[in-house]
Amino acid sequence: MTSTTTTAGSPIAPVAPSHGALRPLGLDDVQITGGFWAQRQAVNGSASLAHIEHWMEREGWIPNFDSAAAGTLSDLDRGGREFSDSEVYKLLEAMAWEIGRTGDAALDGRFRALVGRIAAAQEADGYLNTNFGRPGQRPRYSDLEWGHELYCFGHLFQAAVARARTRPDADDGLLAVARRAADHVVAAFGPDGIASVCGHAEIEPALAELGRATGERRYVDQAALFVERRGTGTLADIELGRAYYQDDVPVRDATVLRGHAVRANYLAAGAVDVAVETDDEDLLDALTTQWENTVARRTYVTGGQGSQHEGEAFGHDFVLPADRAYSETCAGIGSVMFSWRLLLAQGLPRYADLVERTLFNVVATSPSHEGTAFYYTNTLHQRVPGTVPPTEVASPRASSSLRAPWFAVSCCPPNVARTLASLAAYVATTDDDGLQLHQYAPARIRTTLADGRRVELDVETAYPTDGVVRVTVAATEDRPWTLTLRVPSWADGAELRTPDGVQPAPTGTVSVHRRFAAGDVVELHLPMEPRVSSPDPRIDAVRGCVVVERGPEVLALESVDLDGADVSAVRLDLTAGVREADGRVLVTVVTAAPADDAWPYGSPPAPADQARAEAPLIAYHDWANRGPSTMRVWLPLA
Amino acid sequence: MTSTTTTAGSPIAPVAPSHGALRPLGLDDVQITGGFWAQRQAVNGSASLAHIEHWMEREGWIPNFDSAAAGTLSDLDRGGREFSDSEVYKLLEAMAWEIGRTGDAALDGRFRALVGRIAAAQEADGYLNTNFGRPGQRPRYSDLEWGHELYCFGHLFQAAVARARTRPDADDGLLAVARRAADHVVAAFGPDGIASVCGHAEIEPALAELGRATGERRYVDQAALFVERRGTGTLADIELGRAYYQDDVPVRDATVLRGHAVRANYLAAGAVDVAVETDDEDLLDALTTQWENTVARRTYVTGGQGSQHEGEAFGHDFVLPADRAYSETCAGIGSVMFSWRLLLAQGLPRYADLVERTLFNVVATSPSHEGTAFYYTNTLHQRVPGTVPPTEVASPRASSSLRAPWFAVSCCPPNVARTLASLAAYVATTDDDGLQLHQYAPARIRTTLADGRRVELDVETAYPTDGVVRVTVAATEDRPWTLTLRVPSWADGAELRTPDGVQPAPTGTVSVHRRFAAGDVVELHLPMEPRVSSPDPRIDAVRGCVVVERGPEVLALESVDLDGADVSAVRLDLTAGVREADGRVLVTVVTAAPADDAWPYGSPPAPADQARAEAPLIAYHDWANRGPSTMRVWLPLA
Repeated sequence: MTSTTTTAGSPIAPVAPSHGALRPLGLDDVQITGGFWAQRQAVNGSASLAHIEHWMEREGWIPNFDSAAAGTLSDLDRGGREFSDSEVYKLLEAMAWEIGRTGDAALDGRFRALVGRIAAAQEADGYLNTNFGRPGQRPRYSDLEWGHELYCFGHLFQAAVARARTRPDADDGLLAVARRAADHVVAAFGPDGIASVCGHAEIEPALAELGRATGERRYVDQAALFVERRGTGTLADIELGRAYYQDDVPVRDATVLRGHAVRANYLAAGAVDVAVETDDEDLLDALTTQWENTVARRTYVTGGQGSQHEGEAFGHDFVLPADRAYSETCAGIGSVMFSWRLLLAQGLPRYADLVERTLFNVVATSPSHEGTAFYYTNTLHQRVPGTVPPTEVASPRASSSLRAPWFAVSCCPPNVARTLASLAAYVATTDDDGLQLHQYAPARIRTTLADGRRVELDVETAYPTDGVVRVTVAATEDRPWTLTLRVPSWADGAELRTPDGVQPAPTGTVSVHRRFAAGDVVELHLPMEPRVSSPDPRIDAVRGCVVVERGPEVLALESVDLDGADVSAVRLDLTAGVREADGRVLVTVVTAAPADDAWPYGSPPAPADQARAEAPLIAYHDWANRGPSTMRVWLPLA
Repeated sequence: MTSTTTTAGSPIAPVAPSHGALRPLGLDDVQITGGFWAQRQAVNGSASLAHIEHWMEREGWIPNFDSAAAGTLSDLDRGGREFSDSEVYKLLEAMAWEIGRTGDAALDGRFRALVGRIAAAQEADGYLNTNFGRPGQRPRYSDLEWGHELYCFGHLFQAAVARARTRPDADDGLLAVARRAADHVVAAFGPDGIASVCGHAEIEPALAELGRATGERRYVDQAALFVERRGTGTLADIELGRAYYQDDVPVRDATVLRGHAVRANYLAAGAVDVAVETDDEDLLDALTTQWENTVARRTYVTGGQGSQHEGEAFGHDFVLPADRAYSETCAGIGSVMFSWRLLLAQGLPRYADLVERTLFNVVATSPSHEGTAFYYTNTLHQRVPGTVPPTEVASPRASSSLRAPWFAVSCCPPNVARTLASLAAYVATTDDDGLQLHQYAPARIRTTLADGRRVELDVETAYPTDGVVRVTVAATEDRPWTLTLRVPSWADGAELRTPDGVQPAPTGTVSVHRRFAAGDVVELHLPMEPRVSSPDPRIDAVRGCVVVERGPEVLALESVDLDGADVSAVRLDLTAGVREADGRVLVTVVTAAPADDAWPYGSPPAPADQARAEAPLIAYHDWANRGPSTMRVWLPLA
C-alpha cells in the first residue's frame, strides 16, 4: 500500500473501503457525459433493463418469489435454475445504479414493485431462497456445493448496498430485507454455525460491502470467516476437483487463480475487501501475487479469463487457445471487481490498465448494439458462422456464435447491466493530495478532497477513437493539489500538455501538482496508431500469429469484411504494413487456395495460389453485429 | 465396393459381415507370436483382466447383479454409474477373446462364474439392467438420453458373440441370455415399439453382429431401424445439443462425425454393418464421406479423435489443440471399429493405415507397461507434471496426467482389454483370390481360401523397431494365389523382395500373384528413418511446430529426458537434423531462459539466453512410464 486514505462518508459506488491508497468517487461525483460508454449506458438504461426484466418475468424467475410468498411454490412449477434468484437481485442492483445515475422515476416504481415481491417471500428468520426448504424441495443448506444459496444472498446484499447508497432515504425495505438475511447468515454460518462455504463465492465481497454500508462489523467478520474457510476442503471433492470452487488451497496460500473463473475472481475480490478491512497485509500480498500470475499467464489479450468450456475454468499457465476461448463475460466482470479493489488498496496503474482492457474487450463485447442480446462466452476465433439464436426460448449458454436474447443460465446480461449502470464509479478516485483519472471518457467531475479542497473538472475526449484527453478545471480553490492521469502500458510516446508546457508522459501515471485555476487545461495525448503485438512463445495456441491493437481496443478480422471468405484461410502480410484510412484500420491479407482434404500431417504444404487483398479490421467488441460470420483476433503471419 | 466376397462360416472374430470386399480371419486362423503386440497381449491376459475384475468387484459393479438377482438391489447401495453393467460385459468379452486366444482354463472358470451371476439377474421378459425398473429406481426406458440401457445390451451382445464364436459349444448360457435380451429389445423398440434410440450408440453394431452370429435377421433389421431413427430428433435437445448423441442429422445425411466421439464412432460402425447387410450403397457412401472428412479435419496425428473435454466431443474442423487434447482411448477404439468395417466392405488400405496409427498411438498408449493403470484421455501436450493417482479409490476420468488404476467412469480399461485380446483378427483378411496382410507383427497364419486353396504363412518381423517384414510360405497348394501387403502411406521408398527379385512398393498395397511353394519368402522393406511432419496450416493450435514420426509411431519429447526441464520451454533446432543412434531418435533442442512474468503480449521477445542440447525422443505410447513428467508431441521450431 503506497499510502492510506480513509474514506469519510460512503461514496455512491459499489466498493467503498474504509481506507486504502485511493478513495472511490461515487455517481454523484462523476457522470459520464458522452462518447463510447455513455452510449452504452443509454442503451443499457433504455433497452437492456426492460429486456432483462421481461425475460425474468416470462421465465418465472421473478414469479418464483410470488409463489414462494403465497406458499404455493413447488419444484414442479419453479422456473429457472437453482441460482435464478441471484439474477433477479443483479437486475435490482442494475436498476438501483441506473436510478441513481438518471433519477428515472418510472424505473424507481418498477424497482419498488420488485422489492415488494421479493420481501414478501422472505421467511421469518431472514432466510430467503425460492429453491430450498419448502415441502418437495431440498432442505436449506443441504447442497452447499451446487445450491448457490449464499451466492444468492450475496447478490441480494450487493443490490441492497447499491440502493442504500443511491437512495438512502428510499424506505422501500430492501436494506432491511438484506440485513435480516445477513443476520440469518451470520447466525447460521458464524463461528458456531455450519463450518463451510458456498460452492460459488460471492457472499464474501457482498458481506464485506454490506458491513461497510451499514457499519456492521459482524458482516465483515463473517466475510473474513468465509475467506479463511475456503480452501480447507469443507466442500465435496467433485469430478472437476475442489479447485473448481477454490476449495483446494487456502486463499492466503494460493499463487494464481484457478478453477471456475467467475468464482475465482469473486472470491479474490472479497478476499481483498477482507484484507483491507482487517489490515491483513499477508493476505493482500497473496492476492497481489495471484493477480500478477493470473495476468501474466492465464489472461487473454482481451482481458478475458477462463479458457476452458469444461468447468468454465482457468486452464494451466499459457493454455490460452483462441479456438473455443471461453472467456465468460461474467469472469471479465469478476476480473474488473478484483482489479478495482486492488487499485483502491494499492494505487498502482496496472490494475486500471487491466480494468480498461477488460471493459473495452470483454464487457463491451457482450451486449449487442441494441442491448437486447448478449454473449455469454467470448471466443477469439469463430470458425463456423453461427445460426441466429431463438428469440422466443432461452439459449444454452455457449451454443451460438451470435449474441442470444436470453440463456437458460443468464448470469451475464444482468451482470453487464449492473456494471454499465455503475461505470462512472470506476473513472476517477481521490487521495489526500488530489484526484486520479483512471478511465477516459467525457465526464463531469465534482468532488471535494478529504481536507475540503474543492475540485471540479470537465473531461472532453473522443477516446478511444481519438487519443486526446482534455481535462479542464471548472472550479477549484486557491490551494495546490495534484491531478494524476493514467498513461496506459501500451501508450509509449504519450505526452502531457499543461499550462507549463509539453512533457513526455511515460507509461504508468503522470501527475501535475500545482495551484490550479479555473480554466486551466491539462491534455494527455495518447498515441493511437495501430500496434502489432506478439504472444509470449509459451502460448502455443497462437504461435506465429499477431494481434493488432489500437488504443485500448483489440481488433479482429471478420468474414463480413472479406466478401465472406473464411478467416481461417487468410494470412497477414505484415510487409505491407498496417495503415489507417477514413477511420479504418487496414491490413493486407493473402488467402490460400483451400488444400485438398486428406491426411493433414506430412510435408509442409507447397505454396498455393494466393489472392492478396486489403481488408479492414474492426474492434473486437463490434464483431457479429452484422449477421453470422467467422472471425479471428490472432492473425497468422504469411 | 471393389469386389464382393461372401463369408462362409463365421470366423472367430469380432466382425463377420455376410459379404464384402475382404473376409476377416479369426483367432483360429491368425496368432500373433511375438513382438510389440504379443507382449501387450501377454500383459493384458496375465495382469489387466484380473486387475479389471478386481476393481469391478470392489466397486460393486459385479455385485450389483447379485443384489438384482436376490431382489435386494436399491439405488442406495448400487455401485457405479448408470452404465456400469456395460463394463462388466466388456470384461466378459475380453475374457472370451482371451480364452479363445489362449485356452486358459482358469479364466474360463472365472468367465462361467461371472456369466452365472449375470444370468441370474435377467428378468422373465429378457430385460436385464441393474439400474432401472426396481422399486426406488426409475422405470425402464424412462431416460433414453442418459440411461444407457440399450448401450448396456449392446455390450452384452458383443460379449455373447465373442463367446459364441470362440466357444460355440460352451453351454454356459451367455448366448441365450443375449438372445432373450435381444428379443426383448426387438419387441420393445421394433416398428410398433418405442420409436426412439439410445443416447449412447452401441447396440447398433452389436445387434448387427448378433444377427450375423445367430442368423436372426430380425436383429439386423432392428439395428437398421435404430440407425434410421438416429438423427430425427427423438431424443431431447440437451444443453450440449442433439449433436452430442448424433441425433441432429440422419446418419445418411451427415458429412462428418460430430458430438461425443465414442458415440459417433460406435454409431458409424453399426451403420456400416447395416449398410453392408442391407446392400445400402447410399448409406455406405455417406459413411465413407464421414470417414474421409473426419480423418482430414478432425483427427489428431496420433489417430486420436474428439478434441474437447466438454462433451468428450469432436470440435469444429481443424480445432485440434495439443493442449488438453481429449482423445479418449475409447474413441480411438471406436475409430478402429469404424475403419475396420469399412476396410472389410471396401478393401482400401487407407482404413488399415488409420487402424495402425490408432493402435500404436492411442490404444497402446492407454495401458501402463504393467497393464494395471490406464489413460482415459490422451493429451498431446502435458504442461504440468501430474500427481500419482490414488491406488485405492477410483480417479475422475480425466484428472491425472498419469495412468490411473481405475476411474469412476471406467469404460477404457475393459475396452482396451477386449481390443488387445482380439487383436489377431485385425492382422489379415482373405478374398476370392488370396490373402491380405494389413498389420505387421510376428504371426502364424493358417487358413483356407473360399475355393479351398490352403494358405499357410509365417510372418517374422521386429516391426516397428525394424522395417523388414518377412513372410514365409509354410505350406500351400500348387495353385496360384495373390499375397497382398499394405504399404503404409508414410512408407515412401518401400521395396518388395520376392523370389522374382526386388521391386518398388508404392504406398497403398503391393501384391504378388504366383504359384507359391512352401519356403517361398516375400519381404517388405519399409523405410524406418524418422520423418518430420508439419500440420495443415488450418490447425492453428500447432502452427510453427513439427512432429517426428518413425514408422507407425508418433514420437514425443518428455521432460524426463531433459534433466527435468519443462518441455514447454524448448524449441527444436531442425538444422541439426534428426539422427538415430543406439536405437534412439535424437534431436537438438534449444532452451530459452524463462521470460519474466508480465503482460504476455507485446513486442516479439528478444532472443534469450539459450542452452543447446541433444535429447532423445520416445514413442508417444511409452510416455509417463517413468513418473510424473511434462511431455509434448508437437515441437516448436527454433
